[in-house]
Amino acid sequence: MVSVGVIGGTGYTGAELLRFLVEHPVFDLSFATSRSEDGNEIGDVLPSLRSLIDKKFVTPESDLEAELVFAAVPHTTAMDYVPSLIDRGMKVVDLSADYRLPFDVYEDVYETSHTDYGRQAVYGLPEQNKKEIKKAGLVANPGCYPTGAILSMLPLKDSFDRVIFDSKSGISGAGAKPSSASHFPNLNGNINPYKITSHRHAAEMKMMLSDGEAMVHFTPHVIPVVRGILTTAHVFGVEEEDLLGRYRDFYSDECFIRVIDEVPKLSSVRGSNYVDIGGFSVDETGRTVVVSAIDNLVKGAAGQAIQNANLMMGLDEETGLKKPPLSP
Amino acid sequence: MVSVGVIGGTGYTGAELLRFLVEHPVFDLSFATSRSEDGNEIGDVLPSLRSLIDKKFVTPESDLEAELVFAAVPHTTAMDYVPSLIDRGMKVVDLSADYRLPFDVYEDVYETSHTDYGRQAVYGLPEQNKKEIKKAGLVANPGCYPTGAILSMLPLKDSFDRVIFDSKSGISGAGAKPSSASHFPNLNGNINPYKITSHRHAAEMKMMLSDGEAMVHFTPHVIPVVRGILTTAHVFGVEEEDLLGRYRDFYSDECFIRVIDEVPKLSSVRGSNYVDIGGFSVDETGRTVVVSAIDNLVKGAAGQAIQNANLMMGLDEETGLKKPPLSP
Amino acid sequence: MVSVGVIGGTGYTGAELLRFLVEHPVFDLSFATSRSEDGNEIGDVLPSLRSLIDKKFVTPESDLEAELVFAAVPHTTAMDYVPSLIDRGMKVVDLSADYRLPFDVYEDVYETSHTDYGRQAVYGLPEQNKKEIKKAGLVANPGCYPTGAILSMLPLKDSFDRVIFDSKSGISGAGAKPSSASHFPNLNGNINPYKITSHRHAAEMKMMLSDGEAMVHFTPHVIPVVRGILTTAHVFGVEEEDLLGRYRDFYSDECFIRVIDEVPKLSSVRGSNYVDIGGFSVDETGRTVVVSAIDNLVKGAAGQAIQNANLMMGLDEETGLKKPPLSP
Amino acid sequence: MVSVGVIGGTGYTGAELLRFLVEHPVFDLSFATSRSEDGNEIGDVLPSLRSLIDKKFVTPESDLEAELVFAAVPHTTAMDYVPSLIDRGMKVVDLSADYRLPFDVYEDVYETSHTDYGRQAVYGLPEQNKKEIKKAGLVANPGCYPTGAILSMLPLKDSFDRVIFDSKSGISGAGAKPSSASHFPNLNGNINPYKITSHRHAAEMKMMLSDGEAMVHFTPHVIPVVRGILTTAHVFGVEEEDLLGRYRDFYSDECFIRVIDEVPKLSSVRGSNYVDIGGFSVDETGRTVVVSAIDNLVKGAAGQAIQNANLMMGLDEETGLKKPPLSP
Repeated sequence: MVSVGVIGGTGYTGAELLRFLVEHPVFDLSFATSRSEDGNEIGDVLPSLRSLIDKKFVTPESDLEAELVFAAVPHTTAMDYVPSLIDRGMKVVDLSADYRLPFDVYEDVYETSHTDYGRQAVYGLPEQNKKEIKKAGLVANPGCYPTGAILSMLPLKDSFDRVIFDSKSGISGAGAKPSSASHFPNLNGNINPYKITSHRHAAEMKMMLSDGEAMVHFTPHVIPVVRGILTTAHVFGVEEEDLLGRYRDFYSDECFIRVIDEVPKLSSVRGSNYVDIGGFSVDETGRTVVVSAIDNLVKGAAGQAIQNANLMMGLDEETGLKKPPLSP
Repeated sequence: MVSVGVIGGTGYTGAELLRFLVEHPVFDLSFATSRSEDGNEIGDVLPSLRSLIDKKFVTPESDLEAELVFAAVPHTTAMDYVPSLIDRGMKVVDLSADYRLPFDVYEDVYETSHTDYGRQAVYGLPEQNKKEIKKAGLVANPGCYPTGAILSMLPLKDSFDRVIFDSKSGISGAGAKPSSASHFPNLNGNINPYKITSHRHAAEMKMMLSDGEAMVHFTPHVIPVVRGILTTAHVFGVEEEDLLGRYRDFYSDECFIRVIDEVPKLSSVRGSNYVDIGGFSVDETGRTVVVSAIDNLVKGAAGQAIQNANLMMGLDEETGLKKPPLSP
Repeated sequence: MVSVGVIGGTGYTGAELLRFLVEHPVFDLSFATSRSEDGNEIGDVLPSLRSLIDKKFVTPESDLEAELVFAAVPHTTAMDYVPSLIDRGMKVVDLSADYRLPFDVYEDVYETSHTDYGRQAVYGLPEQNKKEIKKAGLVANPGCYPTGAILSMLPLKDSFDRVIFDSKSGISGAGAKPSSASHFPNLNGNINPYKITSHRHAAEMKMMLSDGEAMVHFTPHVIPVVRGILTTAHVFGVEEEDLLGRYRDFYSDECFIRVIDEVPKLSSVRGSNYVDIGGFSVDETGRTVVVSAIDNLVKGAAGQAIQNANLMMGLDEETGLKKPPLSP
Repeated sequence: MVSVGVIGGTGYTGAELLRFLVEHPVFDLSFATSRSEDGNEIGDVLPSLRSLIDKKFVTPESDLEAELVFAAVPHTTAMDYVPSLIDRGMKVVDLSADYRLPFDVYEDVYETSHTDYGRQAVYGLPEQNKKEIKKAGLVANPGCYPTGAILSMLPLKDSFDRVIFDSKSGISGAGAKPSSASHFPNLNGNINPYKITSHRHAAEMKMMLSDGEAMVHFTPHVIPVVRGILTTAHVFGVEEEDLLGRYRDFYSDECFIRVIDEVPKLSSVRGSNYVDIGGFSVDETGRTVVVSAIDNLVKGAAGQAIQNANLMMGLDEETGLKKPPLSP
């Protein structure tokens, strides 16, 4: 068994980590922190986990011990924890944005100073960086939108001129705290574009998909759905004719990528670490459309984090993750 | 008073026409047809209209009289009715696709022969063709997606190189008949792209926005919402800097177009004939994003039909349509 | 024209009053107050009303003039405004709970002192108190749950032993302010009972339906819906056999009550002042089930307030309210 | 390993059985039948299971072999299959209604003749009949509504005079086939009571909860939710004061029942076999309210079937079922 801990156990990402850890055959939950719920039973705070976890939340200031820690706290907070965890010999999967980008890009995009400038981390997209992740002490788990967008285009990297990612996300991506955006009457019956040309996740997409020549555009929308990100990629300059074949080849060794002919559905990946990629259609004036579907809280966050942790601890990538989606 | 009739009164578009006719101060409902509900009280068939309309459905074979008729039947069916209505001296607003396109384009796109080839009709987008509509005997009411897409780009016609319309529609656009697409467990929790590079409505958009040079692309999605179409237009090649100003100028005389600075919401136009257009943001690599919101059953169908009928009968365009949206 | 004002114009109830006032043929909006939006255009704050109201919000401390005022503020706040409005000669429809109950009951149920103890008000349920409302200077607009519940049982008053109101409300009843209850992931996919034996609205139901003998029970639920209250009334001790007939007779003069044979649907009354009552079924062990549907923001709040105001100003009850529901 | 088969693998219940069988450590899927999908890959028909099951659907006429069979076909169809399966030495869990009731009651309630009259079966509610289920060759899996209702009252059996079950179910209970009831615009924004005094599931509730004295009433509603049944039980005649304690005692050995103080939520049991029971509140006139939450497709169907099968095969009841719910 490998002891693992969760920093930030009451947010949606933290709770989702706990959900997977309940059934993980190797990882053993050593601790989960929550300042506001310190001392309370995890199952009382997260009633879906009642009777499944027999442990209390502790403060992050407690004497925490684990071989690997998942940091599930907001960006700018993560960089406060990571250095000391690393110093104490723990491996870390950081689910925030703090170590995903080159530090100068980070400071520019997130408009803040990085207090742990220069520390080495691997961008935790296993389908791209598996070898590096296996050796890493610190893995920066990708953002939810970038995961769906990048995976839909990775097989075409260096083969397109321009891509527009028109992404649609469930509201759970905005977190467990009530806000105007998550207010039921504001979202139900609506689909709300936001930060239409300025969302920070665009930086990750550009970093992974373009050396500067290919144009990468991104517009996110919130949909009246709890879980899932559907990404509609409008691509120009692609000459490959057998896209389905190319994608199947490219991802033939990847256990969580399912390349399909039809258009993917969020419900077919819900609750799971699977990524469905399909569509592969070209219109009469040369635009190619590829569509991907992920669960933003799983492959877009907690599931991918466990996938990374599996790799970092020398386990099979699928350990504790080979689980069917919940459909309908 | 002007007597009007509705061919096809039990579909969503027909029912919506009846909803507006209940309150229209000049149009007087002469008849509404339904083969399946022949002889039944309109209010029994459409329970929301109970106590508001005291009339029975009749068959389209009845002896129908009216000054103007709304044809709210599917494409290929409309062309069966229109010639005889016109011959009997009635003006017609056809809500189907049958008279929207050049006839050769229609036959190509809809893969069928046109049985009324050559008849003259005006494309019923009042913000573009007001003068012609006023004089027309037959108006082809635009499609729902084209209405939202065209209006979002009309002020930029001849000023852009390429536009991708990524459109999101409520399921009412698919009609009142249950189908796999409208099955609640198939739509709830999902957002479903379909005909991602081949939807027929693209033809209307091209007809109205491009003389052949500008590229027009279109991908529709169904969202877990009943009413509304939100169109995210990704545009390239626009040089205008004050887009908000340009749109406000362009639409300054149009009573149903509300140009706003922020991103529009479906709930702000729900149930109404208003079109909210906003966004107007440019990303660092030259893509402009404009967003429009309409109610697909109103400005995208029945409301626009009444707007056209008002113009055809010499009434003020807003007659019976100046009504607040239902929000939240 | 009659000049009217709205105290509290930015809540859902206030905004709904404004929606109806836009089209009301006699009432003329003199002012709408909002402390937080003082000086802002109503249409900028409530974007659905853009281009329909050309007025700014003012503070309630402004020099307000009107013949009739709608007080759309929370309970305990209303009693701060009402005395001075009345003193200045205005008629008032209070949409809060402050004047609905006998004052001692109010203080008990709402656990607060009444600062305007003893002032005379009429309980504004027109289907019961029409005559008194016409002469009233202060009308206490009924609660949303009580409206749906009481109207479903009024024809059986004094004819039943026991009724259980199992009510289901859209979340708009909880107001425009985001909360844990209105957080989309907390409500979507759920139906949430709350205050299952202790909701304060039970007091109004008892007051109107029982002289002390008949037992009245109430349990509210919030459903993942924006608008509407569906009330399932489980009734015991009813001996009438032709319930449909009895209800039709009882409500024969009421323009907003539609008694139907089948079970009513929220969508058939959405956005309107109609009350659909139906079901009327008896099970083999003597329980009768009656179901009512209202729009909580209309007949359950703003619409009924305007109905009351119409009566108070000597107008036809239906003035500005005879509008079709929005369905689907 | 124990080989199991599924008759009727493409309905929601069948698909849900397959979802659990993917991860079941002892049961090995021998076959899944589907007439319409005969010869097709299970993962192509049920895309959520792609890459997780490598098997094709077969017809029920194939040469089927298994130690235990789940019959997931409609009532009246099940009785066509069961006799021959039993004859061939297989154990059967029948998820239809065919063997749940005394045969005369069945014929009366389902208005049909039973073609396998008299065959012995055990009503498969493990919390009541565990001992009998362990020895059974044929188990009749309870209905979804009865499961939620009965479990909410079992600890009070013989201690109440009257109970009204006001139940609210997700639409998945109505099956995978599109219908007017499942048409998105008909359900979204609505909560639809149906068969308000005549639903057939009432017979199971009476059978399990009353010897004839206690009155059992039932009204079902469909809510705009995919999964889950929330049952609000209004109970009269209960004298127990410490209900929470009584329920905790009663269910202390039951691994899937979670007795809680607060009101349960559907999202806390979604996708799982757990039953949350809470509320336990008494109003001032003696009505007790108890609320239960289940996932209709799991504890209300497939999960309970596997729980029964585990017991029938001598396994631990929790085998393959101890999985966390999906929340949010």
